[in-house]
Amino acid sequence: MSLMDDLLEGKIKLYEIERHVPVDEAVRIRREFIERVSGARLEHVSHYTIDMDRASRRNIENPIGAVQIPLGVAGPLRVRGEYADGEYYVPLATSEGALVASVNRGCSVITGAGGASVRITGDSMTRAPVIRTGSAAEALNLREWIQENIDAIREEAESTTRHGKLIKIDPIIVAGPYVYPRFVYTTGDSMGMNMVTIATEKALELLTEETGAHVIALSGNLCTDKKPASINLVEGRGKSISAEVTVPGEMVERVLKTTPEAVVEVNTAKNLLGSALAGSMGFNAHYANIIGAIFLATGQDEAHIVEGSLGVTVAEEKNGDLYFSVNLPDVPLATVGGGTGLETASECLDIMGVRGSGGVHEFAEIVGGAVLAGELSLMGALAAGHLARAHSELGRG
Amino acid sequence: MSLMDDLLEGKIKLYEIERHVPVDEAVRIRREFIERVSGARLEHVSHYTIDMDRASRRNIENPIGAVQIPLGVAGPLRVRGEYADGEYYVPLATSEGALVASVNRGCSVITGAGGASVRITGDSMTRAPVIRTGSAAEALNLREWIQENIDAIREEAESTTRHGKLIKIDPIIVAGPYVYPRFVYTTGDSMGMNMVTIATEKALELLTEETGAHVIALSGNLCTDKKPASINLVEGRGKSISAEVTVPGEMVERVLKTTPEAVVEVNTAKNLLGSALAGSMGFNAHYANIIGAIFLATGQDEAHIVEGSLGVTVAEEKNGDLYFSVNLPDVPLATVGGGTGLETASECLDIMGVRGSGGVHEFAEIVGGAVLAGELSLMGALAAGHLARAHSELGRG
Amino acid sequence: MSLMDDLLEGKIKLYEIERHVPVDEAVRIRREFIERVSGARLEHVSHYTIDMDRASRRNIENPIGAVQIPLGVAGPLRVRGEYADGEYYVPLATSEGALVASVNRGCSVITGAGGASVRITGDSMTRAPVIRTGSAAEALNLREWIQENIDAIREEAESTTRHGKLIKIDPIIVAGPYVYPRFVYTTGDSMGMNMVTIATEKALELLTEETGAHVIALSGNLCTDKKPASINLVEGRGKSISAEVTVPGEMVERVLKTTPEAVVEVNTAKNLLGSALAGSMGFNAHYANIIGAIFLATGQDEAHIVEGSLGVTVAEEKNGDLYFSVNLPDVPLATVGGGTGLETASECLDIMGVRGSGGVHEFAEIVGGAVLAGELSLMGALAAGHLARAHSELGRG
Amino acid sequence: MSLMDDLLEGKIKLYEIERHVPVDEAVRIRREFIERVSGARLEHVSHYTIDMDRASRRNIENPIGAVQIPLGVAGPLRVRGEYADGEYYVPLATSEGALVASVNRGCSVITGAGGASVRITGDSMTRAPVIRTGSAAEALNLREWIQENIDAIREEAESTTRHGKLIKIDPIIVAGPYVYPRFVYTTGDSMGMNMVTIATEKALELLTEETGAHVIALSGNLCTDKKPASINLVEGRGKSISAEVTVPGEMVERVLKTTPEAVVEVNTAKNLLGSALAGSMGFNAHYANIIGAIFLATGQDEAHIVEGSLGVTVAEEKNGDLYFSVNLPDVPLATVGGGTGLETASECLDIMGVRGSGGVHEFAEIVGGAVLAGELSLMGALAAGHLARAHSELGRG
Repeated sequence: MSLMDDLLEGKIKLYEIERHVPVDEAVRIRREFIERVSGARLEHVSHYTIDMDRASRRNIENPIGAVQIPLGVAGPLRVRGEYADGEYYVPLATSEGALVASVNRGCSVITGAGGASVRITGDSMTRAPVIRTGSAAEALNLREWIQENIDAIREEAESTTRHGKLIKIDPIIVAGPYVYPRFVYTTGDSMGMNMVTIATEKALELLTEETGAHVIALSGNLCTDKKPASINLVEGRGKSISAEVTVPGEMVERVLKTTPEAVVEVNTAKNLLGSALAGSMGFNAHYANIIGAIFLATGQDEAHIVEGSLGVTVAEEKNGDLYFSVNLPDVPLATVGGGTGLETASECLDIMGVRGSGGVHEFAEIVGGAVLAGELSLMGALAAGHLARAHSELGRG
Repeated sequence: MSLMDDLLEGKIKLYEIERHVPVDEAVRIRREFIERVSGARLEHVSHYTIDMDRASRRNIENPIGAVQIPLGVAGPLRVRGEYADGEYYVPLATSEGALVASVNRGCSVITGAGGASVRITGDSMTRAPVIRTGSAAEALNLREWIQENIDAIREEAESTTRHGKLIKIDPIIVAGPYVYPRFVYTTGDSMGMNMVTIATEKALELLTEETGAHVIALSGNLCTDKKPASINLVEGRGKSISAEVTVPGEMVERVLKTTPEAVVEVNTAKNLLGSALAGSMGFNAHYANIIGAIFLATGQDEAHIVEGSLGVTVAEEKNGDLYFSVNLPDVPLATVGGGTGLETASECLDIMGVRGSGGVHEFAEIVGGAVLAGELSLMGALAAGHLARAHSELGRG
Repeated sequence: MSLMDDLLEGKIKLYEIERHVPVDEAVRIRREFIERVSGARLEHVSHYTIDMDRASRRNIENPIGAVQIPLGVAGPLRVRGEYADGEYYVPLATSEGALVASVNRGCSVITGAGGASVRITGDSMTRAPVIRTGSAAEALNLREWIQENIDAIREEAESTTRHGKLIKIDPIIVAGPYVYPRFVYTTGDSMGMNMVTIATEKALELLTEETGAHVIALSGNLCTDKKPASINLVEGRGKSISAEVTVPGEMVERVLKTTPEAVVEVNTAKNLLGSALAGSMGFNAHYANIIGAIFLATGQDEAHIVEGSLGVTVAEEKNGDLYFSVNLPDVPLATVGGGTGLETASECLDIMGVRGSGGVHEFAEIVGGAVLAGELSLMGALAAGHLARAHSELGRG
Repeated sequence: MSLMDDLLEGKIKLYEIERHVPVDEAVRIRREFIERVSGARLEHVSHYTIDMDRASRRNIENPIGAVQIPLGVAGPLRVRGEYADGEYYVPLATSEGALVASVNRGCSVITGAGGASVRITGDSMTRAPVIRTGSAAEALNLREWIQENIDAIREEAESTTRHGKLIKIDPIIVAGPYVYPRFVYTTGDSMGMNMVTIATEKALELLTEETGAHVIALSGNLCTDKKPASINLVEGRGKSISAEVTVPGEMVERVLKTTPEAVVEVNTAKNLLGSALAGSMGFNAHYANIIGAIFLATGQDEAHIVEGSLGVTVAEEKNGDLYFSVNLPDVPLATVGGGTGLETASECLDIMGVRGSGGVHEFAEIVGGAVLAGELSLMGALAAGHLARAHSELGRG
């Protein structure tokens, strides 16, 4: 109890409890302290089974327990990719009612139509520092220096990591005296932000020493991490994924209760024209919903949902059938590291058989298929409403 | 066991289990089925204390348990708003190591500097259907009809809700034969997407009957929900929040190990110039991190993290002190409904004393303060690196 | 000759010549001076018939003559608007070969199809200063003050102009201590930038006196003048124009050598998907070409071509015919003031019968029709190539 | 006169006159026809000295004469570039009063401060067709084919041109079955759009034959030509130019009547924050004004003013002086071809000594310097108002 007294009297700080007692004990004391000062009763957050000792070294500070987020599954989803080939159940953690049901319906349509054809169209993680020189002329010289010394820079960068490979430094944008070189890496099965930050920092030491340029910040926002950015649309970031399916016309009518033409019109009026008029970077209905639910289930970084919201949905009528495709340029993903090691996340990755080394590309293709399912289902529902209204208006006419 | 057999043989579907057994039993069977077909061992997701019966009616379909996400606290954070006035502990659910510690450090600086001054600058939830007419001329007529019949439309819309109020329908964008009216509501303490969808749907029935126009889709992406969009930057969506603090120069140096000038330069080079060059809508360092961790803790819709990533950070040197401000135009928030009723979310809202009716504005101000803390802390750290490198370069010189 | 000597010796400056001799004489001397120092022979720029005395007071400083830009006409173009109803010849000044021919072909198709149906969907000119207060809280107070004192502000603003009317001040965006109120006016037949600048400046005097807030700059870039900006897409600026035509299928095939389906596919793949992937604000093929050529012909501000490049083209197949529509949210236009008084510009306005007071709305509708013609023609040509390639591939197959 | 009768009776079309009479005669007849049908008196447009015979083959169809646009000069402007080194007078064609004077003032400040340091940071012209394949998987294969066959593609492309060189095809964006390869060329002294279109068309014949893919349109809007687009900000297009100057503090005060600090604050509040809030791609005050006036003077394509409006202005206080920089990523320029051969355009290029082959880089650096001058002058004026108001408010206080 004296630790509690010390906390209440401000003698020790919240993050110092672990210096005196084991983690789980510290978690309890900290939670009770929060209960005392806030008057809240923290019963449910105290029920956790994850190894908090490990989590407190990797994932969280000042822990008081864990939140629980309901976990559902959608599937089976037939995926036909280069890495994923088979039927999968997709774990989705969300509190938004009807989301899992909607994705599930999409899985059913896709699987019935022979599966989602999925491809990884890009694979990179980026870090773009901002560096200051004395003038635009010097900035150009620095850009040239980087281009000429790419091998030495790569050696430095890659000396910090077993899995990270520096693909290129491109583009290198110059504005006044500032230089923004975008370091582009592959990072294996980890999401890679930490890896590329450390690698880039090492490379910058060389650059600083050799050129005398001054690094203002390790990230100059040209990365662009956790903010929507056109550069990520154009260049890609994380896994870039394209998934598609052709749904037979009769299945569109029987299961989705609409027609290919209606889906195409909704896609054009909403996802293309509407997003254009809104000044949006998301030319889709709700990629973020599916990305979000998979991310929470599998321990991805929740702030990366931002990037996963970008992309373009394509819908076309083709000989009476519906061609439907989702295109996600920017989905940071991992099957090792970060939150993926948390127990419930590991289990969710296991459901898809993609946990650990070697799983991330298969995982990416499943994610593509799941987004396709969720997008198709919602677009189908909107188009069904469209069609139903059209019929009822006709009836009234 | 026969239910399992039926599942394995495809005689019943995953979502049909609840028709035969109570929810918790269904969850168990479904989970075991997933274990069987995937080979995964789902031990930790089976440990949940949330009321799955209720959750299965509101938040999740095909449940197999719950994921656990580590929960930490940052604080105390002094907030001086119109609704929130006092010291708060902020619950943060995340698996990104160092995030809570960073926000915590920011809280300490802000509180030491007298607190975060926070204001809600906008409060609205929007739904913008896309409606088809016969021509651009007719589209204009429809726009006029909407403007002239706003009272009747409001009556219809508000007939569906006790808490929602239709503020305006503006802008109403016309493109060819398509009309995109943006319905703007206040929604009390709930996030309001469902509320405004139902209200708008009702209003559209009147519109359809009176004008013969055809609703293509209830959402025409001008809302804009869960996608980054300039219209939300310009018009605001959810809670628009501005938070600011002036940190004494000596505190910047002592605690953040940097100077106001260095913070200002990092802000300009990274958050303003860098984001401009990247074609980004997020002129900040990492709003999404803090928004994300609060959203997961308190049961907000994770896909709305996308919208919370938008906004502009302002940093200025003022008589030797650091003026620092975050400006979030688009933060959908709730203290009732959606995921906020999940037990752990309720407890987290209780920590801040904002659960339930009447809490959302206080909550919004705390969120503003917390984002300010996280942003200040990271920008301070980047600026400290900037300064440290400058000193070491000087030493080498 | 002594003026020349003085110039060469730097005793007088280029802009001081008019103090000593009449304008045309000054133009000659200045031109000869430029010939002397540059070695250029300036024969053609010396041939001008515009009244340089008047121009030198309104349009140009340091004049040395005039450039000549070839002027062609396209038409007749049948326009069916609310203000323009009839057949028009459209003057186009350009040096881009094939542009006039292309617009001309579009005019022919449109006129043959019964004419372009055009509507003005918005009419406003804007000025948005940036104002500094002491804090975000004060900024909010200022926003409220503006909303509450709109009548007094309007009185001040309108006291400076006979033709300008202040419609609203909206949106008023707040970021930290900065306030960006967007003053929205109608400006009659003049483009209005000067008018609204003067009116806003006067209104700001009242604001400054009453509130003590400080105006940082008369334009805070939220106007947004001569830069592409989403706010103009959303809110409109200048004349917002929608023009449409339904081209019979047989005419599409006979004249454009393509099919409605092919035009629709090019529009979707290029103007919608392509622009989305490019992070563009122009979801069209080449509005800027037609806008540019009309602007040069009629004395509009050439920098406003930037704003005229925004907008969305809609193409749909409708019962075998081609529905085609252009939507320009942001076309600043004038029939009085600025460069419209230059002799050749006046003559070009006369060709359309829209010179002077009362002509601007008719002019705007003709502009809409002309852009429709140019866009339809290019899209038709692209679609014809598409189709031709498809046929030849088939032949090879 | 019978030609006139034929025109009036619709027996021949406007563009057919040249079949019967020489060009200048045709111009006269066409003009008189327009006078007859419109009632306009076209006196001034009939006064032209340019060689209409040549223009009618290269620049214009259906000519009726020429418009005259007042031409002024600003300078001398000291430019210190890699290609331009010396003092220049800059020809500016505009009807916007005060623009030349403002640029002239900027030239004076810059020259007084030792000149504008200018660098070309990029040089490319692009064409990005949209190609259709059967699926996303095939689209990826096509992307790979392009990457692997870059040498053969280059050979085809370059076989059509002496001056054009294919630098790279990058990025190649895939969305569903569509592929958007961005062909990037250098084009010597011509602006190059025609050159790269022809070259790309030739290259696509090879691609079509070898892969069976189908070219939907020669431009898929990823170029991006004459529309504002983030891809051009990120990748550059035309000439990318950076220009900078450091103005001594006392000169800022004496000539610009303001302080470095005031300019920096206006730049931050307006060009950075304001443009961010507006969702703009132009983080500057008025690049388009200066670009526009130079473009009209020198026969550049007026629709490219759109692209010249993009870019970021940087302002910093440095030891009491003002560092000021403009950064234009996207300025298509030519000294040969297109409108540059028109007589008045040639003379304007001669004023700067950049006409013809070998001049375009010197020209680009002068353009950079001129934009720097115009931007500095307007920003200085805004900052002077800012300061004056601050003083007067202080006086009142």
